[in-house]
Amino acid sequence: MTGISDRDFSIIGRSVRQVDGAEKLTGTAVFAGDVYLHGMLFAAVLRSPIAHGLIQRIDVSRAERVKGVKAVVTGNDCPFRYNPPLRDQPFLAIDRVRYVGEPVVAIAAEDEETARRAALLVEVDYEELPAVFDPLAAMSKEAPRIHPDFDNYVRDSRLFTPVPQSNILSHFKLRKGNVDAGFAAADRIFEGTYRSHAFNHAPLEPHAAVAQVDRTGQLTLWASTQSPWFVAEDLAKALGWPVHRVRVISPYIGGGFGIKHGLKNEPIAVALALKANGRPVRFVLSREEVFSSTAVRGAVTVSLKTGVREDGSIVARKAEVVWDTGAYADVGPLLCRNGSYSATGPYRIENQWIDGYCVYTNKIVSSAFRGYGVMEMAFAYESHTDEIARALSLDTVEYRRRILLREGDENATGEVVRSIGLRECLDACAEAMDWDNPVPEGRGRAIVTTAKSSVAPSGSSCFMYMNDDGSLTLMSSTTEMGQGSRTVLSQIAAESVGARLEDIRLRASDTAFTPPDRSTSSSRSTFNMGNAVFTAGQDVRKQILSRASALLEVSPDELEICNSSVQVRGVPAACCSFSDVAKVLPGATSGPITAHGSFVPKETTSFDLETGRGVRITAFWLYSSQGVEVSVDGDTGEITVHKIVSVHDTGRTLNPSACAVQAEGGVAIACSAALTEETILDEHGRVVNPSFMDYEMATAGDVPEIFPIMVEVPHAEGPYGAKGMGEGPTTGVAAAIANAVADAADIRVRDLPLTPERILRSMQVLEG
Amino acid sequence: MTGISDRDFSIIGRSVRQVDGAEKLTGTAVFAGDVYLHGMLFAAVLRSPIAHGLIQRIDVSRAERVKGVKAVVTGNDCPFRYNPPLRDQPFLAIDRVRYVGEPVVAIAAEDEETARRAALLVEVDYEELPAVFDPLAAMSKEAPRIHPDFDNYVRDSRLFTPVPQSNILSHFKLRKGNVDAGFAAADRIFEGTYRSHAFNHAPLEPHAAVAQVDRTGQLTLWASTQSPWFVAEDLAKALGWPVHRVRVISPYIGGGFGIKHGLKNEPIAVALALKANGRPVRFVLSREEVFSSTAVRGAVTVSLKTGVREDGSIVARKAEVVWDTGAYADVGPLLCRNGSYSATGPYRIENQWIDGYCVYTNKIVSSAFRGYGVMEMAFAYESHTDEIARALSLDTVEYRRRILLREGDENATGEVVRSIGLRECLDACAEAMDWDNPVPEGRGRAIVTTAKSSVAPSGSSCFMYMNDDGSLTLMSSTTEMGQGSRTVLSQIAAESVGARLEDIRLRASDTAFTPPDRSTSSSRSTFNMGNAVFTAGQDVRKQILSRASALLEVSPDELEICNSSVQVRGVPAACCSFSDVAKVLPGATSGPITAHGSFVPKETTSFDLETGRGVRITAFWLYSSQGVEVSVDGDTGEITVHKIVSVHDTGRTLNPSACAVQAEGGVAIACSAALTEETILDEHGRVVNPSFMDYEMATAGDVPEIFPIMVEVPHAEGPYGAKGMGEGPTTGVAAAIANAVADAADIRVRDLPLTPERILRSMQVLEG
Repeated sequence: MTGISDRDFSIIGRSVRQVDGAEKLTGTAVFAGDVYLHGMLFAAVLRSPIAHGLIQRIDVSRAERVKGVKAVVTGNDCPFRYNPPLRDQPFLAIDRVRYVGEPVVAIAAEDEETARRAALLVEVDYEELPAVFDPLAAMSKEAPRIHPDFDNYVRDSRLFTPVPQSNILSHFKLRKGNVDAGFAAADRIFEGTYRSHAFNHAPLEPHAAVAQVDRTGQLTLWASTQSPWFVAEDLAKALGWPVHRVRVISPYIGGGFGIKHGLKNEPIAVALALKANGRPVRFVLSREEVFSSTAVRGAVTVSLKTGVREDGSIVARKAEVVWDTGAYADVGPLLCRNGSYSATGPYRIENQWIDGYCVYTNKIVSSAFRGYGVMEMAFAYESHTDEIARALSLDTVEYRRRILLREGDENATGEVVRSIGLRECLDACAEAMDWDNPVPEGRGRAIVTTAKSSVAPSGSSCFMYMNDDGSLTLMSSTTEMGQGSRTVLSQIAAESVGARLEDIRLRASDTAFTPPDRSTSSSRSTFNMGNAVFTAGQDVRKQILSRASALLEVSPDELEICNSSVQVRGVPAACCSFSDVAKVLPGATSGPITAHGSFVPKETTSFDLETGRGVRITAFWLYSSQGVEVSVDGDTGEITVHKIVSVHDTGRTLNPSACAVQAEGGVAIACSAALTEETILDEHGRVVNPSFMDYEMATAGDVPEIFPIMVEVPHAEGPYGAKGMGEGPTTGVAAAIANAVADAADIRVRDLPLTPERILRSMQVLEG
Repeated sequence: MTGISDRDFSIIGRSVRQVDGAEKLTGTAVFAGDVYLHGMLFAAVLRSPIAHGLIQRIDVSRAERVKGVKAVVTGNDCPFRYNPPLRDQPFLAIDRVRYVGEPVVAIAAEDEETARRAALLVEVDYEELPAVFDPLAAMSKEAPRIHPDFDNYVRDSRLFTPVPQSNILSHFKLRKGNVDAGFAAADRIFEGTYRSHAFNHAPLEPHAAVAQVDRTGQLTLWASTQSPWFVAEDLAKALGWPVHRVRVISPYIGGGFGIKHGLKNEPIAVALALKANGRPVRFVLSREEVFSSTAVRGAVTVSLKTGVREDGSIVARKAEVVWDTGAYADVGPLLCRNGSYSATGPYRIENQWIDGYCVYTNKIVSSAFRGYGVMEMAFAYESHTDEIARALSLDTVEYRRRILLREGDENATGEVVRSIGLRECLDACAEAMDWDNPVPEGRGRAIVTTAKSSVAPSGSSCFMYMNDDGSLTLMSSTTEMGQGSRTVLSQIAAESVGARLEDIRLRASDTAFTPPDRSTSSSRSTFNMGNAVFTAGQDVRKQILSRASALLEVSPDELEICNSSVQVRGVPAACCSFSDVAKVLPGATSGPITAHGSFVPKETTSFDLETGRGVRITAFWLYSSQGVEVSVDGDTGEITVHKIVSVHDTGRTLNPSACAVQAEGGVAIACSAALTEETILDEHGRVVNPSFMDYEMATAGDVPEIFPIMVEVPHAEGPYGAKGMGEGPTTGVAAAIANAVADAADIRVRDLPLTPERILRSMQVLEG
């Protein structure tokens, strides 16, 4: 990366304010739910009341007769299926329902009340089928088949292996070294099964979509989607249209956390728009719908078996991971792969044998969640690591230092790791936790280390142009959902060009114009889009210097750019502004200043399906270390988290306060998920807590003091050395709390969430 | 231009159908007037009933009280002025009105009827001032000053010279050689004064604008404007905002012809939107408003004096040109310059002395019209050329052959002309007119030659990206107004990439995304934007070849692209599609395929204000020759045009049928303007024929048979050698008809339009 130098940066590295802060604080920022269009219709959906069944009959005639109803659609009216890489999910249920809450009939009317009223008049007869909710039960050959038509689904990719005639849609394998020989050589063997639970992403903004198919057949979709290109391509494939016929506009997003990555409510808005004679259709979910029918962070069961020598070095690791994907695939196959290969953690383990299973159940779908499986895996492997250290009477931090991956090591997937800030994170965390001194009386503490990959290969691109007044427009499909992408991309643009931050105008994503970008997910935007922006910015800078060189009649080498102005080095009076440079005047030798940037990480490769090995499967790793200090109330079972230290290797910290806020937000979410949040189903598969009254989510007052710390081990390929860091803060918190509880109360809880009930039960077991 | 080669082209050079034909034929194409937004308000305007006066009092209180009225604005509410290069025109009249029809008060209401009704309740008191309608009278020192505050106006450019304390806002001078010596050396001297009249552009689509200032302060303007960037920059300067705060979206346009180049009704929509609390305001003009208050092609008086030797060679030309710009500058200064320097025509004239005057009058504003002054100048110089030839008893075609500019000659502004297809045009026209054989009994005929420059330097830029399915999105700010730009740019894109035409998706202009382009005017889009698209296309092609080379494992040199597919040369089975190439897959070495193109013509320079000389002031010239055959009814004075041959040097004909249609359309308009159309004012300055009932416009049935012919003298800098050709067809028609009438009836009419009344009067003069 040519941008790394020792010169002082003027904009990156500074805690500049969020460029969208004012808009959000004053309430002027536009979200998808704020889009009101002329002639807009409003949607309501009738959903399945049962977890599994065949649709025998749908009678929409009474609903259609309601005044104001303009369109009624069923699955048979729109026989399209979405979800790459496995197109298993219909826009509306076709012939069969697979979970409680699955959309069956959608209605568009002149107002929302009418649509809802009409939905109640639809009659659906079901033939109920046996449902299966437990993924382990669903894996057996005898379990009811949830997708008997599985083999007919379109598969966009062969990078996952279904188990024929079963509910297992993907069996991921990682094979490294000789695990049997490893266990044979082990002095001690440890085993444990760790369970993570389902919970909701609960973004503040419920999913909102407005879809319109105009008179020319062009579909425009305004949606609260993190990944407009992902959605455009998925919809186009589902509909059998060229991609450019689907335009996805993604304004600000009020929180995503993964649930707004792929299609959720959008297909329903589209299904209605296709029948609405050109009128736009708005479909904004109620909070109840978000909780009970969009998606959850799915439950995962991880069984680990580890062979160690007396000194603690790990000679073999076997893991079986079962991912409950719910009724449809969503990101299941990829999650199963990327999560499962993380089962070894950031540790040196020569011999590994991992099996990951992604399994259908008759439940709400599981989707991506910030951390993408590593939160669940880290809960397992970091609980497990502590168990080993404690059993061997080793200091848990010192033990980790010993087994951590180091620069030049080969990791699970065969990559030789570089730029690995693990030790730096761990040391910084230990220092901030005052690890060398004893914990205060009555408290326990723990420090964990985690590593998370980022999706690769995945491309990002952007356009940039200079306006006549010297300001710059940046066009990127990265979406702003509170994570600060607008600010950091604007900073990279300004720094790379030499412009003032306020001269950068970043446009909201619109796939008709902002060029392709895989997604805003996987902590990839600063790294991938950042690189694209940097490339464009450098090109713009070069063009500016060339023009200024003509205007000022000196060689470009003698010029310097700063604050949207070019001056002859050392001669401040000999200068010109960007607006001087922007104009196409007589004598011009070039047209408007425009540039593009396109990026893909170097040398990423694919997995071998039999061994799970690839040379380099991520552009960078998110390395983190997190420490917590807790106390446990032996009477109530309540855990009090006193503080959390959250350390991340950012490569380079482009905006310290933005990184700190990311760390705080991630830790808070992870804390809430580890301690209280859970999507609870009854025996019929119904979500019993689909409201903020019943769903226990931590508020600001419940979150402990958080100490975010950034360490910088520059990445050779990152923009200014930066890596992504958005997901790191969520990964280790649950494990750290569980380990701190073990430290405080000498109990080991292997099931999440760490509710008072579970704590008490564990204590009684100990006592009993 | 590296694109010129002898290989067979697959898409350019073919008469492919207009890519927007189906949309327009089926009525699905969206125009600005089709934009209906949620909460939209409707505008009406109260206009000045007098030609010149001071505003004493405006009382809007009764209007404001009308139920449904949401905003009422006067000039004092929006003290902004537009029009580069001279910011003389207020959004609404401030203190003074200068023509009948000038907007004084604007009202936005819940519906159009309410807005109109409220406008009638506004009371305005004027102190009437003497008005001046004749530009020659307006030039005198005694004439009423129309802009006494002229010196306070902002001037964006110094490239024009006002005459102090007068109504002359620009005095253009061209001085070449020694004109006195030239006249002294002449054998004969000819003089004549030629008058072109005012007429309306009369686009089928009346001007439409919808403006909205959103909660963040961003202005979005949907408008029937030819030149969205020109409008965005003009508005931003007027408002004192950064350019990116003004977003101009230009959907399809139903005819422009120059009247939709700069701001017309848009400032009023904006003035109201600024007061409308975020609600959008729609302002679509009535036909009467288009006729009486937008703009006209202005009247021009050209006095020519020419010294010739006995052999007809011209030794001196003196010209005085008076341009009536109406009440405001609009494009007046530039028009005066570019029109006036055309007074010598495409002929070799060593000594020249030209004075051009752009003059304010109390009339509707004059704006750009297709041909940009050359229509008026050519009427003068080509009438004059024929008069000379006839006086010298020379064949008018042979005479022109003798005096035409030739390759390597220096023209009026000092440019050494290249790629000059004048002789080719003239010869082709003479052949098609069967010039060597006598004209049928009772008819007259004439052939003229003209040259028109294109605005320069002016930049164009575009972006292009490849979608995941291999289709390509092209983003250009060129607007489609019936001239076929979408088709020709799509052709250039497809050809330069190697894609199928249907794989190119061209997006409508939107200044938030489509990068800067000066304007869709001046026949510049095929040349300027065409070059930008070509550059981007070549870059995309290179990227495709590089990726295909990796996929097919051969060197890029061994590959060929055709029909959106890449194959190993000579091995059709070894191929991959664009969609194979588009995907970012494991092993990818580059991100999404994106490209930009930016163009400015080489070596254009500016004018010297005292001599009007510049080395190269246009990127290319439109060279044309047009022949007509007429008969004149001696009883009625009616002219029948039997046929028109219209020959144009396209450089390379990128789409033969599109060029032919351009020629036919231009000739039809010019014919109608020459024979019947006229915007007529009464003695108070009121337009007396502001409707299609009273304004005589030729219909398809009135237009003679037109024979379009393209000749190709490739331009070294043009895309595939092409030049622009859109304005050529309008330039020579009036002169050709006047000359043919002279040939048929031995009368010389020097005033346009060539109405039966004028013809009869000329004949009676001859008879009398």
